[in-house]
Amino acid sequence: MKKAEYDLIRSESLKYLEKAGILLTDDEVENFEVADFGLGRIREFGLQLVVYVNTDRCCAKDLVLLPKQTCPEHIHPPVGEYIGKEETFRCRYGTVYLYVPGVKADNPQATIPEDKEEYFTVWNEIELKPGQQYTLLPNTPHWFQAGPEGAVVSEFSTKSLDEYDIFIDPEIKRIPVVEN
Amino acid sequence: MKKAEYDLIRSESLKYLEKAGILLTDDEVENFEVADFGLGRIREFGLQLVVYVNTDRCCAKDLVLLPKQTCPEHIHPPVGEYIGKEETFRCRYGTVYLYVPGVKADNPQATIPEDKEEYFTVWNEIELKPGQQYTLLPNTPHWFQAGPEGAVVSEFSTKSLDEYDIFIDPEIKRIPVVEN
Repeated sequence: MKKAEYDLIRSESLKYLEKAGILLTDDEVENFEVADFGLGRIREFGLQLVVYVNTDRCCAKDLVLLPKQTCPEHIHPPVGEYIGKEETFRCRYGTVYLYVPGVKADNPQATIPEDKEEYFTVWNEIELKPGQQYTLLPNTPHWFQAGPEGAVVSEFSTKSLDEYDIFIDPEIKRIPVVEN
Repeated sequence: MKKAEYDLIRSESLKYLEKAGILLTDDEVENFEVADFGLGRIREFGLQLVVYVNTDRCCAKDLVLLPKQTCPEHIHPPVGEYIGKEETFRCRYGTVYLYVPGVKADNPQATIPEDKEEYFTVWNEIELKPGQQYTLLPNTPHWFQAGPEGAVVSEFSTKSLDEYDIFIDPEIKRIPVVEN
């Protein structure tokens, strides 16, 4: 990702946090994460986030999704003695469609570009509006997409080890590289 | 606590959550917790809260403090194989003064009624304004008081076992009893 694009996406994302009434410190703004998953198609596949705390035991983040932006399907596997990340998503602004294993939705609200469809294997749809939430156990494949107005989602979880997340799409690199 | 007082405190507290831009579901409003610690002096010693999730591994709450209201000094001890609760407080609205072990503040912002002073033993002051946060390890004595405008504080933590919290004041009962 180019620095100019990073700055633009970051600035748009911070406006969604403002709409959700969420205040960040200067340091948090400075370290705000923009993940394009190495695909270079950030408005389709991407996620913006601020990490408040991530200790050995506990983690909290706020996630921002631009309109119709998708966080691609992945799982949080066990790592050594760690049984894997358990996470609760709580919608704060907009609408987010979360997909997990189960009966496929008849008419899913999310749409995926044809060339990437094969990497989205779970289609049981959970719609989350502000104040609604859902808890995922470790090792559960999941992905999510914002509605047309974007979304802000709080994530309460055990320790995050993002670098160990397993994405279905083999082209994905979770840890972003920002070029000058 | 009488039901009428519970209802009044709950309704005031919900207004602070609104000011902080935090939306609750009807169920969460219904189950909103008002803790008077059994002291019957809720505007001095009390805490209002909504619990979003509390699994074996992870917990998230939003806490409301009325103006100058105090959550009394306590610790989260180990319970069996559980090493005790680790918690991060993140201020969302107003100001909260958090007190932990360390050098006593020269001029603490919080004040405690004389008859209860002996039950407040740690006076190292941490001021938290919106966006600021602090992480406490298990077994750390701590207490907190809101500034004159009240406060809303998000709590990200490992499992909560409120019934095992140890309060310094022997008159305190953590689990509230609401009478009709």
